[in-house]
Amino acid sequence: MSDFFKNIKPLSYDPDGSDLGFRHYNPDEVFMGKRMEDHLRFAVAYWHSFAWPGGDPFGGQTFDRPWFGETMDMARLKADVAFEMFDLLNAPFFCWHDADIRPEGDTFAESLRNFEEIIDYLGTKMESSKTKLLWGTANLFGHRRFMSGAATNPDPEIFAWSAATVKACMDATHKLDGQNYVLWGGREGYETLLNTDLKRERQQAGRFLQMAVEYKHKIGFKGAILVEPKPQEPTKHQYDFDVATVYGFLKEFGLESEVQMNIEQGHAILAGHSFEHELALASSLGIFGSIDMNRNDYQSGWDTDQFPNNVPEVALAYYEVLKAGGFTTGGTNFDAKLRRQSLDPVDLVAAHAGAMDVCARGFKAAVAMLEDGTLEAMRDERYAGWESSNAKAMLEGDLASIAARVAKEGINPQPRSGRQEILENIVNRFV
Amino acid sequence: MSDFFKNIKPLSYDPDGSDLGFRHYNPDEVFMGKRMEDHLRFAVAYWHSFAWPGGDPFGGQTFDRPWFGETMDMARLKADVAFEMFDLLNAPFFCWHDADIRPEGDTFAESLRNFEEIIDYLGTKMESSKTKLLWGTANLFGHRRFMSGAATNPDPEIFAWSAATVKACMDATHKLDGQNYVLWGGREGYETLLNTDLKRERQQAGRFLQMAVEYKHKIGFKGAILVEPKPQEPTKHQYDFDVATVYGFLKEFGLESEVQMNIEQGHAILAGHSFEHELALASSLGIFGSIDMNRNDYQSGWDTDQFPNNVPEVALAYYEVLKAGGFTTGGTNFDAKLRRQSLDPVDLVAAHAGAMDVCARGFKAAVAMLEDGTLEAMRDERYAGWESSNAKAMLEGDLASIAARVAKEGINPQPRSGRQEILENIVNRFV
Amino acid sequence: MSDFFKNIKPLSYDPDGSDLGFRHYNPDEVFMGKRMEDHLRFAVAYWHSFAWPGGDPFGGQTFDRPWFGETMDMARLKADVAFEMFDLLNAPFFCWHDADIRPEGDTFAESLRNFEEIIDYLGTKMESSKTKLLWGTANLFGHRRFMSGAATNPDPEIFAWSAATVKACMDATHKLDGQNYVLWGGREGYETLLNTDLKRERQQAGRFLQMAVEYKHKIGFKGAILVEPKPQEPTKHQYDFDVATVYGFLKEFGLESEVQMNIEQGHAILAGHSFEHELALASSLGIFGSIDMNRNDYQSGWDTDQFPNNVPEVALAYYEVLKAGGFTTGGTNFDAKLRRQSLDPVDLVAAHAGAMDVCARGFKAAVAMLEDGTLEAMRDERYAGWESSNAKAMLEGDLASIAARVAKEGINPQPRSGRQEILENIVNRFV
Amino acid sequence: MSDFFKNIKPLSYDPDGSDLGFRHYNPDEVFMGKRMEDHLRFAVAYWHSFAWPGGDPFGGQTFDRPWFGETMDMARLKADVAFEMFDLLNAPFFCWHDADIRPEGDTFAESLRNFEEIIDYLGTKMESSKTKLLWGTANLFGHRRFMSGAATNPDPEIFAWSAATVKACMDATHKLDGQNYVLWGGREGYETLLNTDLKRERQQAGRFLQMAVEYKHKIGFKGAILVEPKPQEPTKHQYDFDVATVYGFLKEFGLESEVQMNIEQGHAILAGHSFEHELALASSLGIFGSIDMNRNDYQSGWDTDQFPNNVPEVALAYYEVLKAGGFTTGGTNFDAKLRRQSLDPVDLVAAHAGAMDVCARGFKAAVAMLEDGTLEAMRDERYAGWESSNAKAMLEGDLASIAARVAKEGINPQPRSGRQEILENIVNRFV
Ligand SMILES: [Co+2]
Ligand SMILES: [Co+2]
Ligand SMILES: [Co+2]
Ligand SMILES: [Co+2]
Ligand SMILES: [Co+2]
Ligand SMILES: [Co+2]
Ligand SMILES: [Co+2]
Ligand SMILES: [Co+2]
Repeated sequence: MSDFFKNIKPLSYDPDGSDLGFRHYNPDEVFMGKRMEDHLRFAVAYWHSFAWPGGDPFGGQTFDRPWFGETMDMARLKADVAFEMFDLLNAPFFCWHDADIRPEGDTFAESLRNFEEIIDYLGTKMESSKTKLLWGTANLFGHRRFMSGAATNPDPEIFAWSAATVKACMDATHKLDGQNYVLWGGREGYETLLNTDLKRERQQAGRFLQMAVEYKHKIGFKGAILVEPKPQEPTKHQYDFDVATVYGFLKEFGLESEVQMNIEQGHAILAGHSFEHELALASSLGIFGSIDMNRNDYQSGWDTDQFPNNVPEVALAYYEVLKAGGFTTGGTNFDAKLRRQSLDPVDLVAAHAGAMDVCARGFKAAVAMLEDGTLEAMRDERYAGWESSNAKAMLEGDLASIAARVAKEGINPQPRSGRQEILENIVNRFV
Repeated sequence: MSDFFKNIKPLSYDPDGSDLGFRHYNPDEVFMGKRMEDHLRFAVAYWHSFAWPGGDPFGGQTFDRPWFGETMDMARLKADVAFEMFDLLNAPFFCWHDADIRPEGDTFAESLRNFEEIIDYLGTKMESSKTKLLWGTANLFGHRRFMSGAATNPDPEIFAWSAATVKACMDATHKLDGQNYVLWGGREGYETLLNTDLKRERQQAGRFLQMAVEYKHKIGFKGAILVEPKPQEPTKHQYDFDVATVYGFLKEFGLESEVQMNIEQGHAILAGHSFEHELALASSLGIFGSIDMNRNDYQSGWDTDQFPNNVPEVALAYYEVLKAGGFTTGGTNFDAKLRRQSLDPVDLVAAHAGAMDVCARGFKAAVAMLEDGTLEAMRDERYAGWESSNAKAMLEGDLASIAARVAKEGINPQPRSGRQEILENIVNRFV
Repeated sequence: MSDFFKNIKPLSYDPDGSDLGFRHYNPDEVFMGKRMEDHLRFAVAYWHSFAWPGGDPFGGQTFDRPWFGETMDMARLKADVAFEMFDLLNAPFFCWHDADIRPEGDTFAESLRNFEEIIDYLGTKMESSKTKLLWGTANLFGHRRFMSGAATNPDPEIFAWSAATVKACMDATHKLDGQNYVLWGGREGYETLLNTDLKRERQQAGRFLQMAVEYKHKIGFKGAILVEPKPQEPTKHQYDFDVATVYGFLKEFGLESEVQMNIEQGHAILAGHSFEHELALASSLGIFGSIDMNRNDYQSGWDTDQFPNNVPEVALAYYEVLKAGGFTTGGTNFDAKLRRQSLDPVDLVAAHAGAMDVCARGFKAAVAMLEDGTLEAMRDERYAGWESSNAKAMLEGDLASIAARVAKEGINPQPRSGRQEILENIVNRFV
Repeated sequence: MSDFFKNIKPLSYDPDGSDLGFRHYNPDEVFMGKRMEDHLRFAVAYWHSFAWPGGDPFGGQTFDRPWFGETMDMARLKADVAFEMFDLLNAPFFCWHDADIRPEGDTFAESLRNFEEIIDYLGTKMESSKTKLLWGTANLFGHRRFMSGAATNPDPEIFAWSAATVKACMDATHKLDGQNYVLWGGREGYETLLNTDLKRERQQAGRFLQMAVEYKHKIGFKGAILVEPKPQEPTKHQYDFDVATVYGFLKEFGLESEVQMNIEQGHAILAGHSFEHELALASSLGIFGSIDMNRNDYQSGWDTDQFPNNVPEVALAYYEVLKAGGFTTGGTNFDAKLRRQSLDPVDLVAAHAGAMDVCARGFKAAVAMLEDGTLEAMRDERYAGWESSNAKAMLEGDLASIAARVAKEGINPQPRSGRQEILENIVNRFV
């Protein structure tokens, strides 16, 4: 037992209680026939919480963590502290990149040995913990070798390195019984079109993703393959811009029934969408998977990865998640980092606890809106005309026959109110 | 002959000449085996130039045009003046929406009669003019009936009205021997997800576009069907967000070989892309069609539709157009409006003349960059590794075999310079 | 009594009641020694609610109002309906531009006659209504004569016209016992620097504002003069960009103790600020006056003027208002328009009712946070070091003596946590 | 002589020559009575060129420089290579932060000793070089002690540390005969208003700047004190948001005639302004000083600090610089960093060379536009009405007398064209 979180007691549901308890998150409370914990499926992210030193483009490390340092001992200490926090939070899941959990070696082989050793260490820890693995992923963006891309690199040897890395990470995820495997293409994009062959890089990316899917089937991994879209940052343009873009990409490479989306609120914002838009779109296209529930500042153009704090927004997100049928293998990951001024261990626990409560409140409001039914009834009523057999028949017709009917019937349709403010008022009754 | 442009003489190529001549646009000059006019294929847009009254969200009409008024006489006067300007500019093409050229009637039938009469009038004028029709399109966004969408309207009768309108506009485009038919979905989107059935509306939009394609074949129209993407404005979210989004949509509805893109610089900007990105992407996906060469202010969030004025940017755009093989049925449309303070007739002519010159300069620079070959040689050199048989074989392989090779060969790839600044310097030699 | 709002009953506080009652707004409830109505001081805006036809840059009028038309009879009907809605809402205040309430005449004199007649009509209506005038203002942006500015126009005759208009509007505001007079410089800016003399226009604007202040004193108007900042739209750049910009302008022209800010949430957002930033800054500079409580969509670049709907955000705003001492002459104006698809009379009433409830909830949360005191105690504790006499003395010192002390004492200050997430959690206990 | 730039020859003016010569920058060519070098006054920035390791928020160091390492030997090697590049480029100026040039010590005293030793080393190098110091500045943002601000820190000891640092940097700048001293408040702002006392921090910042001005006079430093505005990044909000904001701040603290602006193109863009706006505004307020001629990507929300590459934009900037009277103590600094993929020494030289050429072309175009005179003649003509004695008298008048004249004379001013497109066409003749 490290003393990093000394004096911090395990958090429990305590609606009127002490500072660090949960006021709203009550894992065992049942909604729509399922426990809240099983609906929300919270995950703690290893990288931001335990590996990020607090730097930004204008300043260096602010956090002093006893486990910072590139040795195996430090990696084990980091894992110990991580699981201590998972326990404090009663977190059902966690997530990692390979680079979060193991020291970088001088060679691929050495990095792999370090990685495999730590995977075993994590496996042992998981045996005595309730916390399971929501997903694993490979960091194919941090090291300078990836500066021009991983799968989309102009150098085929970096494609090879990346493929070998993904293999190792998929193996490890499978070994730890992970629920999903994620790919985020932080360097799969470009800084300038002048040095970029867009078409070639797209082919490389498509083949790489196919290989990951093929390998999943080969090893019998039952979890989902998830792609996480983001429009830009670190690169000027990233190929996995948003859900709609990735959908087209999946269709081109025949992967639309093999791959799902891991949608981050902050990345939706950066792409010019609301989070609920991305969720609803993914659901409507049959590719909804999981979420990263960390917000972006609406007014910065970079990825602030903040813990969620706005209940009405979170409620609209879970409303879409519930309408999509809820999570199967997916969950609610906090891909969120503390502000770099939040130096204390208690900040890390409080940030997660506050976020879990915000999500619990939003989720409960979403359930209430769904069970109330007014919103969906009004939506159905708006489109009711399309349920008529005439309307359905029209969709089977052609322009000429429709034009003939317009002429013959002298139709002159009148607009009807969209009732946006009334709908917003209804939402506000629940949040 | 109206006196609207009195005292303005037809413009000609006059590199050192008077204010309103072309300093750079020389239609007959040959580049890469084709006349400049045949490369650039300039088109004047009827709506902004002749139908827009100059209003903005905080102010009303500023332009006083003698043809403003909803009568057939006014519509004919408008056509007369338009062709006078086409002649002054020696413009090879023009474009219209139905609503630009005819007065709205009280009924569909009356609007259609007005429209057909004006189409005949335009046809007659075209007989004595060099100016041809680049494309026609239907305005399915201005009238209040379209406030909640056209094809994606919750009311099937508005779908019907829209379909009948598109039929009429396709017929007219065909009759006038138009080179393309365009669809821009200004209201095909939503203001709030709370009242929207995203999935249903997507199906409606997909079927509508299929009908347009089917009708094209039925009537034997040989031009291209073009979709013009835009991310937002007027609606909060528009379904045809950008090229990548439309590609996914086309794939879903089996239309990717039937429909091409009409890409507007300003809409690319609003979607968070550079214009050249959208061009290169469309080309790489095989759906490049035509362009609207009007810029957006980078720092406004709305669609400013300004005439192009930055030669280096225009050069990069035509570089992508040329790499895509140049225009076939497409062309360079100015979907641009005067600033609302530019009241005088000469402003309208000068704006087009300046834009044509900017395009001509950019085009010539693009040709020179291509013929010089340095940029493409450097690009090829960057990806040369992928031309090896080993690299090609790797793409046929799988993760496990690649990982085995990485382990066996101990590969440790080193990054190489992306040379962005040197490439930008090279571009600056030509612009 | 018009029948526009037929079937809509006056709204009252009814926490568990019918659709259109107030669930949270309870005018007579006392907080911090003052009635809620006297804290919030709600105002309905005449223009958006009764004069705006529903157009946007891509579409025309959507609203069909029986009072639309440029006659005095219509203007009186509009006033009748407006007061009917004020009564339904129990609104303590309203606001107008001259152009909202009277038909435009062919000459200045005729417009003035229309205006004065309507002012008298409003005065009569106010006698039998509880609704008072929060502020009046002149529309110096809608008519084409203002297209290049009002006070900052290159044509001095338009300066004159604008000055005469402001005089008339100040007279009328005074006559109706308005609480404030507002200036919003929608066209006081530029489209292009190429045709603009920034320095000269700044001098014109400064003198114009001085004249308004002088005139206030001359006629004995006791209300405040308010300037409403906005960064852009309609023009590319507006001189009253944000609070900080206007403060510098007031300092230059010696007006910082004569003029206060009317701060709109949406304009704060467009300027890249949070609303609470603008409020806190104005308060810290001694120029806080009043608010326009209408939100902007964070992801559009234009002014969406939506009714507020996010309680946590509104709570943070009222927290700053309360810290600034609350409103004196100012109030909470809804400079908000219905979405253009919200066609029905009930939409107009519901939008205001929902907004008033959102504000009431936010206000109550703000009061609770202030009374709880944790936030302010933590803030004070963070700056406690500055309360020491040494720290205060340092501010009286100079670089050399401070440097000597740093050297002598070997100081090595260590950073302390900023506790942002914990503070956000505290806020979430109240909203 | 290091071998870092081996094989790279000194660059000279060679309009038709080799890759790395100047095609446009000809230091001795005379424009408006002054040598081009004396107009442009180029400076190389030490930090980005020699101290930045190439990291971004998602990836670490990409550059391998032989001088990386925190020792005095490395600092001297860095200085050697820097001056080798200054010589290659024939750069008249350079700039530094304290943290760029010396290793950080364990204590203030040790850092100061390192700093003073390196200042002496630079002084010696400058004796045998043409390159002078444009400005020095203190890095008060990189180290974790500054994470919550320097002058505006809640901890007065950090204010003290900052003051002592600025003293040392001003002393050193004075010793090296620097032309200016710059302050950029990268951490003078906040992440959240919840933990911030805006008013108190403003007072701290104001007093700090006063102290710097007082110290300048005390030591007899004749250069200018420059403040560099930036709206955000690294903090969510920075107090020196833009030129207008800083002007208000200077007025509040009585510093408007003591402090000038160092305006960066990229920061102007991030604040929602064009670069030329910030230049023209500073000039009109009498606080124009110097420029950082590095562009921002218009479509990223973070500070990309790219070398300039767009000649038309640069021309408009120098047009404002020339209209402001040109530089006195100021100059053209490249606060620009290579793209992190530009690994090679030649990239560093080429980036500067290309930027200098872009500036030279833009400058020459600006001179030509000024000497041609059309733009200014059209501007004067637009405001000619204000030169009449009537108009001037009106500005001395009051609202009532102006209103009386409007009534009496029945004035009805008509708008005149703003001629934006024609003006843009004129600019395009020169760029
Ligand atoms: Co993120
Ligand atoms: Co994420
Ligand atoms: Co457009
Ligand atoms: Co267009
Ligand atoms: Co507004
Ligand atoms: Co307002
Ligand atoms: Co910068
Ligand atoms: Co700078």
